[in-house]
Amino acid sequence: GKWEREINFSVIGQYVDYLVKEQGVKNIFVNGTTGEGLSLSISERRRVAEEWVTKGRNKLDQVVIHVGALSLKESQELAQHAAEIGADGIAVIAPFFLKPWNKDVLINFLKEVAAAAPALPFYYYHIPALTGVKIRAEEVLDGIQEKIPTFQGLKFSDTDLLDFGQCVDQNRQRQFAFLFGVDEQLLSALVMGATGAVGSTYNYLGKKTNQMLEAFERKDFSSALNHQFCIQRFINFVVKLGFGVSQTKAIMTLVSGIPMGPPRLPLQKASREFTDNAEAKLRSLDFLSFNDLKDGNLEACS
Amino acid sequence: GKWEREINFSVIGQYVDYLVKEQGVKNIFVNGTTGEGLSLSISERRRVAEEWVTKGRNKLDQVVIHVGALSLKESQELAQHAAEIGADGIAVIAPFFLKPWNKDVLINFLKEVAAAAPALPFYYYHIPALTGVKIRAEEVLDGIQEKIPTFQGLKFSDTDLLDFGQCVDQNRQRQFAFLFGVDEQLLSALVMGATGAVGSTYNYLGKKTNQMLEAFERKDFSSALNHQFCIQRFINFVVKLGFGVSQTKAIMTLVSGIPMGPPRLPLQKASREFTDNAEAKLRSLDFLSFNDLKDGNLEACS
Amino acid sequence: GKWEREINFSVIGQYVDYLVKEQGVKNIFVNGTTGEGLSLSISERRRVAEEWVTKGRNKLDQVVIHVGALSLKESQELAQHAAEIGADGIAVIAPFFLKPWNKDVLINFLKEVAAAAPALPFYYYHIPALTGVKIRAEEVLDGIQEKIPTFQGLKFSDTDLLDFGQCVDQNRQRQFAFLFGVDEQLLSALVMGATGAVGSTYNYLGKKTNQMLEAFERKDFSSALNHQFCIQRFINFVVKLGFGVSQTKAIMTLVSGIPMGPPRLPLQKASREFTDNAEAKLRSLDFLSFNDLKDGNLEACS
Amino acid sequence: GKWEREINFSVIGQYVDYLVKEQGVKNIFVNGTTGEGLSLSISERRRVAEEWVTKGRNKLDQVVIHVGALSLKESQELAQHAAEIGADGIAVIAPFFLKPWNKDVLINFLKEVAAAAPALPFYYYHIPALTGVKIRAEEVLDGIQEKIPTFQGLKFSDTDLLDFGQCVDQNRQRQFAFLFGVDEQLLSALVMGATGAVGSTYNYLGKKTNQMLEAFERKDFSSALNHQFCIQRFINFVVKLGFGVSQTKAIMTLVSGIPMGPPRLPLQKASREFTDNAEAKLRSLDFLSFNDLKDGNLEACS
Repeated sequence: GKWEREINFSVIGQYVDYLVKEQGVKNIFVNGTTGEGLSLSISERRRVAEEWVTKGRNKLDQVVIHVGALSLKESQELAQHAAEIGADGIAVIAPFFLKPWNKDVLINFLKEVAAAAPALPFYYYHIPALTGVKIRAEEVLDGIQEKIPTFQGLKFSDTDLLDFGQCVDQNRQRQFAFLFGVDEQLLSALVMGATGAVGSTYNYLGKKTNQMLEAFERKDFSSALNHQFCIQRFINFVVKLGFGVSQTKAIMTLVSGIPMGPPRLPLQKASREFTDNAEAKLRSLDFLSFNDLKDGNLEACS
Repeated sequence: GKWEREINFSVIGQYVDYLVKEQGVKNIFVNGTTGEGLSLSISERRRVAEEWVTKGRNKLDQVVIHVGALSLKESQELAQHAAEIGADGIAVIAPFFLKPWNKDVLINFLKEVAAAAPALPFYYYHIPALTGVKIRAEEVLDGIQEKIPTFQGLKFSDTDLLDFGQCVDQNRQRQFAFLFGVDEQLLSALVMGATGAVGSTYNYLGKKTNQMLEAFERKDFSSALNHQFCIQRFINFVVKLGFGVSQTKAIMTLVSGIPMGPPRLPLQKASREFTDNAEAKLRSLDFLSFNDLKDGNLEACS
Repeated sequence: GKWEREINFSVIGQYVDYLVKEQGVKNIFVNGTTGEGLSLSISERRRVAEEWVTKGRNKLDQVVIHVGALSLKESQELAQHAAEIGADGIAVIAPFFLKPWNKDVLINFLKEVAAAAPALPFYYYHIPALTGVKIRAEEVLDGIQEKIPTFQGLKFSDTDLLDFGQCVDQNRQRQFAFLFGVDEQLLSALVMGATGAVGSTYNYLGKKTNQMLEAFERKDFSSALNHQFCIQRFINFVVKLGFGVSQTKAIMTLVSGIPMGPPRLPLQKASREFTDNAEAKLRSLDFLSFNDLKDGNLEACS
Repeated sequence: GKWEREINFSVIGQYVDYLVKEQGVKNIFVNGTTGEGLSLSISERRRVAEEWVTKGRNKLDQVVIHVGALSLKESQELAQHAAEIGADGIAVIAPFFLKPWNKDVLINFLKEVAAAAPALPFYYYHIPALTGVKIRAEEVLDGIQEKIPTFQGLKFSDTDLLDFGQCVDQNRQRQFAFLFGVDEQLLSALVMGATGAVGSTYNYLGKKTNQMLEAFERKDFSSALNHQFCIQRFINFVVKLGFGVSQTKAIMTLVSGIPMGPPRLPLQKASREFTDNAEAKLRSLDFLSFNDLKDGNLEACS
C-alpha cells in the first residue's frame, strides 16, 4: 500500500536510543547505502537528515550526512542543508553514471560539494565496487587538504589494503579519520591503521564489534580474532543466501525489534525464508540476545 | 565562471532547426546520456524537457523524455511532468546504484514509473555496460504489455545481438519500436530487425546515417556498408583518442556551429588536442561540410 | 572408467562423412575450444590433428589446426607438426595466463609460431571473453603481413562489430578471410563483410546455417533473418539452461547419432535434464531430422 | 638470439644459496607464476623441478612444485614426476581456459592430480584474478580431506579476507598451511591467521618481510606495521609504473646480482626506464644493500 512507501520518521528517535544503549554505536552515517539515501528524493533526504540530527542531539557523538548525488547541484544543496541543520560532517561518494576520468576531475567534483558547506568536516566515501570509479583512494588523498581544506577523512569500502595502507602511511602527520567499510574483515584493516569503522552490520553486531575493538586495543589478538571469526561466520552464512540492503533491513528489524519497514524499489523485501534462516543462525551464534550466560546449543562464539 | 554552469536554454530552438534541416533528425531523446540528464537537478530536467517540447512543436515528429532516476519518486514526478507538457513518450533506464536483482523487480520499478504517465508511450532504455544491470532485454519484454500497457518500445544500447534479435523475433506481432543505440554498428542491427536508432553521433552524422538507412531500405547493401564503414572510421579514430560525452559535445559544436557549452562535473571539457584531431578527421572524411561536390584530399567515403 | 578418458579416434572418419553429407560443412577447425584442444596433452593434439588430416583427405576443403598454447615452444612444435602432416593452415589464440601487454608483444608471439610453419596459412583467433586479452583485432591486423607473411585471416569471436568492421574495411585490398565466431548473430557479421564462419553450432546446425548463407547471397534478407531467428531460438533456449562445451557435445551426439563421449575434466558431462530439454527444443524447431516434409506441432521455423 | 630463449639452469644452485643466506627464504614454490611455469614445455618444467630439488637438498626446508596445467594428463604427469624426484609437495591452480562450473568439478580435477602423487602433500593455489575461477576457497576446503587425503594447505592469492578467514576458522583442528599470496598486505592476513606466505617479492624483500614476521610474532605491531608500510611504498611505486612478472625478474637481477635473464614471450623484458626507477626507489628505501648503518638520503623505513 501507499503507506509502505513513505518514510516512517517516528522510529528514528527510538532507533537512536537503541543504537546507543544496546549496540554501543554513537556515530551515525546517514543517507548512505544501507539507508537507501540515493533512492530518496532530495526533500526526503533533507527530512531524514534533520530527524537524525535532532534526535541524536546530546545522545550521539557525530552525525555525518551522506550528500553524494549524480547531480553536483543537488549534492551542493544537500551539503548546504547539512550545515544549516547542524550536522557534524558530510560525506560524498564518487559520481558513478558519467564517471570522472581521472583523479583531478574527481577531486574537482568533491571540492565543489565541500565548498557548499565550508565549515563542515568532509569525508570521501570510496566504494569502487558499487561506483565503478577505480581511482585509487591514495591518489585522491594526495595533497587533498590544499584542494579541500575541510577534508577530514576517508570511508574506505574495498579490500585493496595496499591502497588503504598507503592512505594511512602517507598521511600519518595529518589527523585524518580512516574508516573501514568492509565489516567482515575489519580486523585486517585495524592492523593496517584504521581508526574506525562504518558499516551496515554495526546496526546489529555493534556490541560484538566493540568487543573486538577493545580486544585489539589491549593487544589481545587472539580474542580479537575470535570475535572477527564469529562475525565472519554470520556474514559468510548470509552471503551464501543472497545478502544486500533488503536483507540487512530484515536483520535490523529482527535484532532491534524496531520495525524498519520494507525497502524501496528497485529493492524488494527479503524473503521469509531468508529471515528465518538468518534468525536461526543469529541464535546459534548467540548474537540475538547478547546474554553472556546463556547455555544451550551454541557455536563457540560469544 | 558561474555562468558556465548554467544551462543555455536559448540555443535549444536553434538546435531543433539545425537537426531537422541539416541532419534530417526529427525524433529527439531528451535528458539521456548525451544530454547529461542525470547530472541535472530535477527542476533543470523539467525545464529542459519543456524547452524541447515547446521548440519542437510542429517541427519534430517525436520528443521522448528520459525520466529515469535512482529515486522512483523523482522518476514518477518527471514522468507526470512529461505528460503535462505534452511530450510524445517517456523512457526509463534501469536503476543502477541499488540494482534490481531479477527481471520481476526491474519490471515493477518500470511499471511504477509508467503508471505515473498512463497515457504516454513508454520506452525501456537498456544499457547494461553503464548500469551494470545485466538482465537481458528479451526477458524484460516477455509479457511486458500485461504489466505496462503503455509499453511502446526498446532502446537497446548493447552489442549482444542474440538478445536484441530475440526481442524482435518474439514480439513481431506487436507494434513495438526496436531502437538500436550502438551507432558504430547500426547496420548489424538493421539486418536483425531494428526499426530505428537513437544515438549521440546522429547529432552530427545524422545525414550520413540517413543515407545508410536509405541504402538499406532499397536493398543496396554495398552502399549501406560503405556508409557504415565511413562512420566507423570516424568513431574508431575518436575512440582511440578517448571518447565520451564531453568529446561528443565538442564535436557537436564543431559540426553544427552552435555552442554546446562545456559539460558539467564529473565531466570535463574535451581537450583542444582532441578537438583539433577530430576536426581534421571529420574534414578528411568530408563529414564537416556535407558538400557533395567537394574536391581535394579525401578518404573515399562520402 | 579409464577408457572414458581416452580419445576415441575411430569416430573421426565417420564424423567427417557426417559433416560433409548431412551438414554441408567442408572446412574444419581442429583442436579449438569445442574440441577441448587445450585439455589435451601435446601428443594427443598431434594425433587428433593427424587423424583429421588423414580422414579429411579428398573429402574436406580445408583442415585448419589450432596450435595455440600457453607455451610458445609447444605452440611452435604443434605448428611444425601441422606442416609435416599436410594441414591446410594453423590458427593461434592469444596466450592468456601471462598476457601480452600490447599489440606488439602479441604479434611477436604470433610471429614466432607462424615462423615454425613458414609455408602454412596462418589465422589469428580473437576471443577476448575467454582469453582476457583485450587488444583489438583491428590493431593486430594493422600491418600484419609485414610481420607474418603467411597471415591469411581472422577468426573473430566477439560481438564488437566496430572492431570487426574495421578489420574488414581496412584490409579490403588483401585477400584475408574474415571468419565470424558468434554463431547466434552471424547474420549481423555477414552484412559487415564476414567471408565465413567458424563455430560450434555448425556441427549440428550447419545445414540450417548454410540455408541462411544462401539466402543472404541471393539478397533474400527476409529469409536469411528467419533462418537466423530460428537458430537464435535454439541458442537462446539452451543458454538459459547453461550452455558450454559439455552441452555442445551432448547435442552433437544427439543430432548426429555418433557418440562424442563425455568431455574431460575440468568439464563434466551435460545433465540428462539438459539433454532431454535440448532434444525437445530441437524437435519443436524441426532441427533434429531435417525432413523437409514433416508435419506436426512445430514452431514456424524450418 | 636463440640462447636467450633457453633456461639457464646453471644459476639455480647459486640462487638457492642467495635466497637462504641473503633473504632468509628456505621454502620454494617452483614453476609458479613468477617462474613462468605455464610458459615452459612439460619437459622444461620437469628439468626445472629436478634442478631445484637437487640443488636445494640439505639447504632448503621445502621445495613445492607447481604442477597445474590446462591438461589434466599433463598435470598428472608432472605430479608423478615431482614424487619421483623427491619434491616435498605439489601445488595446483584451477584450470582456467575451460573452467570448472562448480566446487565439485574443481575438486574432482584437483583430486585426479593429487592421486597421481599419492604420497606427496598437496596444496591448492587459489588465484581467482588470474584464473577467472571465482569458486570460494572456503567452499573448496569444505570436506576436502575426504576427497584428497594428501591435502596439506592453501596458497591464497586474493584480497577477500572473509573467504581467507573462514578457511582458517573452519579448519582450525586440522594442521593445514594457510599461505598468503598478496605480499603488499601480508600483515592483514597474518592477523587473520595466515601461517606463512608465498609471493614474488620475497625473492628480494624476504629479509625485510622476515623482520615483519618476527615483529608480529613478538606482538610488536607497531614495528610490524612500519615494515609493512615500507614494503607497500615500494610495491605502490612500481605498480604505478606497470608491474608484472617481467618487472619482478628485473628487480630480482638488480637486488641479487644473479642474472635472471629475460622473460619469455608473451612477456617482454622490463624497460630500462622501469629498472632505473625501481633501483632508485630501492635505494631510497634502503632495500638494495641491507646495510643497517647506512647514512644519507633515505626514507625512514629500514
